[in-house]
Amino acid sequence: MIKVNFTSHNKEVYCNKGDSLLEIARNADIFIDAPCNGNVSCGKCKVKLIKGNVDTEKTRHIKDEEWEQGYVLACNTKVIENIEIEVPSKLSSSMHGMKIEGSDNKKDKEIFDRAKKIIEENNFEFKTNIAKTYIELDEPTLDDNISDIDRIERHVRNNLGYDEIDFTLELLKKVPQIIREKNFKVTITYIKDKNKITILNIESGNTEDKLYGVAIDIGTTSVVVCLVDLHTKEVIDKASSVNAQIKYGADVIHRIVYSTKKNSLKELNKAIIDETINPLLESIYIKNSINKDNIISLVVAGNTTMSSLFLGVYTDFLRQEPFIPPFLKSPKLLGKDIGLNVNSNAYVFLAPSVASYVGGDITAGVLSSGIWSSEENVLFIDLGTNGEIVFGNKDYMMSCACSAGPAFEGGGISCGMRASNGAIEKVKIDKETLKPILTTIGDTKPVGICGSGIIDLICQMLINGIIDRRGKIHRDINNERIRFNEHEMGEYVLAFKEEYNLENDITVNEVDIDNFIKAKGAIYSGASVLIESLGMDFSVIDKVYIAGGIGNNLNIENSILIGLLPDIDREKFIYIGNSSLVGSYLALVSEDAKNKLKNIGNEMTYVELSVYPTYMDEFISACFLPHTNIEQFPTVRSILSEQL
Amino acid sequence: MIKVNFTSHNKEVYCNKGDSLLEIARNADIFIDAPCNGNVSCGKCKVKLIKGNVDTEKTRHIKDEEWEQGYVLACNTKVIENIEIEVPSKLSSSMHGMKIEGSDNKKDKEIFDRAKKIIEENNFEFKTNIAKTYIELDEPTLDDNISDIDRIERHVRNNLGYDEIDFTLELLKKVPQIIREKNFKVTITYIKDKNKITILNIESGNTEDKLYGVAIDIGTTSVVVCLVDLHTKEVIDKASSVNAQIKYGADVIHRIVYSTKKNSLKELNKAIIDETINPLLESIYIKNSINKDNIISLVVAGNTTMSSLFLGVYTDFLRQEPFIPPFLKSPKLLGKDIGLNVNSNAYVFLAPSVASYVGGDITAGVLSSGIWSSEENVLFIDLGTNGEIVFGNKDYMMSCACSAGPAFEGGGISCGMRASNGAIEKVKIDKETLKPILTTIGDTKPVGICGSGIIDLICQMLINGIIDRRGKIHRDINNERIRFNEHEMGEYVLAFKEEYNLENDITVNEVDIDNFIKAKGAIYSGASVLIESLGMDFSVIDKVYIAGGIGNNLNIENSILIGLLPDIDREKFIYIGNSSLVGSYLALVSEDAKNKLKNIGNEMTYVELSVYPTYMDEFISACFLPHTNIEQFPTVRSILSEQL
Repeated sequence: MIKVNFTSHNKEVYCNKGDSLLEIARNADIFIDAPCNGNVSCGKCKVKLIKGNVDTEKTRHIKDEEWEQGYVLACNTKVIENIEIEVPSKLSSSMHGMKIEGSDNKKDKEIFDRAKKIIEENNFEFKTNIAKTYIELDEPTLDDNISDIDRIERHVRNNLGYDEIDFTLELLKKVPQIIREKNFKVTITYIKDKNKITILNIESGNTEDKLYGVAIDIGTTSVVVCLVDLHTKEVIDKASSVNAQIKYGADVIHRIVYSTKKNSLKELNKAIIDETINPLLESIYIKNSINKDNIISLVVAGNTTMSSLFLGVYTDFLRQEPFIPPFLKSPKLLGKDIGLNVNSNAYVFLAPSVASYVGGDITAGVLSSGIWSSEENVLFIDLGTNGEIVFGNKDYMMSCACSAGPAFEGGGISCGMRASNGAIEKVKIDKETLKPILTTIGDTKPVGICGSGIIDLICQMLINGIIDRRGKIHRDINNERIRFNEHEMGEYVLAFKEEYNLENDITVNEVDIDNFIKAKGAIYSGASVLIESLGMDFSVIDKVYIAGGIGNNLNIENSILIGLLPDIDREKFIYIGNSSLVGSYLALVSEDAKNKLKNIGNEMTYVELSVYPTYMDEFISACFLPHTNIEQFPTVRSILSEQL
Repeated sequence: MIKVNFTSHNKEVYCNKGDSLLEIARNADIFIDAPCNGNVSCGKCKVKLIKGNVDTEKTRHIKDEEWEQGYVLACNTKVIENIEIEVPSKLSSSMHGMKIEGSDNKKDKEIFDRAKKIIEENNFEFKTNIAKTYIELDEPTLDDNISDIDRIERHVRNNLGYDEIDFTLELLKKVPQIIREKNFKVTITYIKDKNKITILNIESGNTEDKLYGVAIDIGTTSVVVCLVDLHTKEVIDKASSVNAQIKYGADVIHRIVYSTKKNSLKELNKAIIDETINPLLESIYIKNSINKDNIISLVVAGNTTMSSLFLGVYTDFLRQEPFIPPFLKSPKLLGKDIGLNVNSNAYVFLAPSVASYVGGDITAGVLSSGIWSSEENVLFIDLGTNGEIVFGNKDYMMSCACSAGPAFEGGGISCGMRASNGAIEKVKIDKETLKPILTTIGDTKPVGICGSGIIDLICQMLINGIIDRRGKIHRDINNERIRFNEHEMGEYVLAFKEEYNLENDITVNEVDIDNFIKAKGAIYSGASVLIESLGMDFSVIDKVYIAGGIGNNLNIENSILIGLLPDIDREKFIYIGNSSLVGSYLALVSEDAKNKLKNIGNEMTYVELSVYPTYMDEFISACFLPHTNIEQFPTVRSILSEQL
């Protein structure tokens, strides 16, 4: 046996000669980002060999300087003797780290309030079918010796007025001891359905005030859980982390391919349930002193693939023509069925999907956006790992999905990261010195760059003449921040390691820019084709709702400048946050909203872009800054006039 | 560590010095009967030390001869060095052995047919709400790309005419691959509820003919499972074994006491599910080439304690005044909830109980007996480990429970065993020689004696003047079969070991007889008080139904002679077999019968004998052969005239 010491994690593991370093790390639960899932194509799994020799090869992702320092790609490295390995902290912690987000964020509150208002405007009640009631049972005697369950039933029938009363097996197991703990004084938690109730939990004494629900957004890249007080309907806390499935691939396609291997469907399911959602729940319970048995209701939203993997359902036919999802609406689900760290009989509602690539995250997003009741024409764009677009109003809704990849969440970008602490979220470049002015989340030293930062950066590079409209760095600039490697690939240095005492420089290279241009081109062309399919154009748009984890600091002006968003009146753009999460929250606190969510997918017509005749041409035209046809961007035209 | 070699099982296990031999055997899954659960009171856990020394003591249960041979009580023995132990085969195999019973037994068929007739006479339909249908789905195309689940739903809605269609998560997980196995030709299994169906299983190809249910009787001593074809409603096979909980005590009280120890509720639950029912199911599946996923419906009956332990519910309050059962009717149960070796979503219906000591075995038994629709006055006696009695007709039913103990199933009798191969089921004693003529089940050499054999034996000992009416052996008889030990306890030898090449003589001693007299006294006095409580006496009885595992060979005449049954017209007695199993079978094959079973408990009035004023006196009077008041047994009076 060979010993691998991950010095960065104080963890020693044993393996066989010839084992892949990436696999060893995965088995040891050490997170190494590998969006391409070990195909030696993305170059993200770079780790540093501290001691010992390995069987590896230098690839194009490793600079000479890095090679000398011992950097290798974990996926391309076989272990042959005892070694010591350092996993760069950016990969292991900032991508994987768990974050408890307060709900005190003002912008966040505005987003939730806006969504609540839509629900109110539609006369939906903020009312769930879940309740908790303190009851005092008669103590049993020889003359009143009915069973414990019958005693509860009798009380509920006589005092609460329900005729039909159901129980769960888990409740039954608790009842005899719980009711005797505080002399037959208990609190029951139940779900109502007309005149019938099902009792889900019983606690000794009066615990009426403790009644919670959880809304969960399962993004391909990030997962957010949101703890809600079901009495007050207030968000108590939020927590987020990277989706642990990311180790099996950055996008849904890589994960679906991986899921077809033996046992890997179970691994993917375990990654989302046991390694992502359950630890997030646990952290939020501890912080807020909450008993998981008091989590009685959940609403979960994710794209079609995430929804399937959440339930452990085989997904490969999603990927193969004719692209068939296993299901759109899920059956009734209980916490125990899925292995969630909540009350075993908690009701779990999974937002329904519309098609293979328009999932529950979009139906929930549409719910929170209010398009479905809008008189105005609304364009809804979700900038997630995939990009999904909905266009319509109260009379009709069209939807489509674009293969935008994970660029908006920092994926597919060499120094990319999600919008968490240390992420560069705003960039301004000084016209003279070409030096960047960086704003990071949490005002800490920079760790990487997130989606809104990349938009700013590319825009600034464009208007300051660093790149051309194809995204290529001008070869004639002489500046310390611009350099080219031996393959003639150019890169711009956002942060020298010496400036911030980093392990490596933070850079963005031409491949990153190219990836990003393809991502924004996919979104713009998708929106364009969707509206065109109705015989309309962008001029009919009254509102553009931008959703997604890209963050509050998305710069609309810059987004238009690079051709991500259409060049229309800036007042029309509204950032509605993580609309999938907000929609889930609404369904959690309002049964009416949940009923709306159940049916919203039926109101949406899905346009399959991959078979739409003009889509490919539109996409290629949009892979330009801002677009091949600059006439579509009149305001950009004037800004860039000197370059045209 | 010390090594214990169970030579009889070819099993070596390790333990610590001072560990109890009984515990060691239990942990090693070696069955040793211990009805008193290790209290050194019953003397049943006798094992033979072959090699090595132990820390033990001779008790009154061990004869001098046995002590010399190395016999010790496992519960009273601490291991101090490496030893070899032999577990007598009677204890380890005949009590524990699994038995697959054919359904070809003629008497058995009569019993089921009789019960079916009652159902027919009440115009109940032999119809379940479970069905299986072969369907051919349209193959998906780019133009018809609805989800797999929607495809099934569409077909079912259009072709089978159901509006509301539900699924289970387990089904969802199977669907994508199963429907593609045979080109979208599948068979669905579903449960109907008005216009709604829930699809529970899907198989590729046409498997419409494979649809099964299981009826289970959980007795305190024995468990029987009965495989039923839900199309034809025929019993395909039966299998039975000892309830593996028996190692924790022979009767419900010992088990309840044991269940209050740490983790022991789980052990008891595991013993019935994993060690008894699941192996029985497995054996029956193998024999009949059945896939467990095709077991879609189950009906289970057991007494109140067995029902609770089946679900893993805390039972101790059943035992403590005011004797409160945790529940009477169980919530909706699925196979997976209980860990049964059947389709995860199989519906499991547990027969409801009436009170702490009148359980689902009695409601099921009453269902199959037909008292509830009888014009005649019926006395129903279940001779199980407890004895339960019901008296009534279509207008009213009274019920009570007697603490009869396990004597009728061979428990509490030193050479007792259940009615399986090798059990002495009939005994006749030659008046002159006092030599017994034995009939054994399976016509094999005798292993022990079962309930019907004990009744015969005691009756024969009484009428041949071996015992007096108190059950004491006459001291003045000089016969090789009658002997007294050093404590002056008399015993009768049923079989000398030399006669049949046995390990030990098969004997019945005065303690055994005393135990049996108490058991029969409890039954007789219970029936007597129950009828008396209505101001009636035995003369009003039109029919007596005898139920229970005591076996087909119960001799009514002898039972009356010893005072177990009332001295009324012999034509009135009918043996209705394992009525708990038969009732479960009826509820399994007829939804109408199941609905009747759901409510039958409400029609039964429970009489708590322990607080009934005259019960103790009646019981003491009945602890005599046949009774203190011989006037109650006129026909016995004439037979015993010379002894009186």
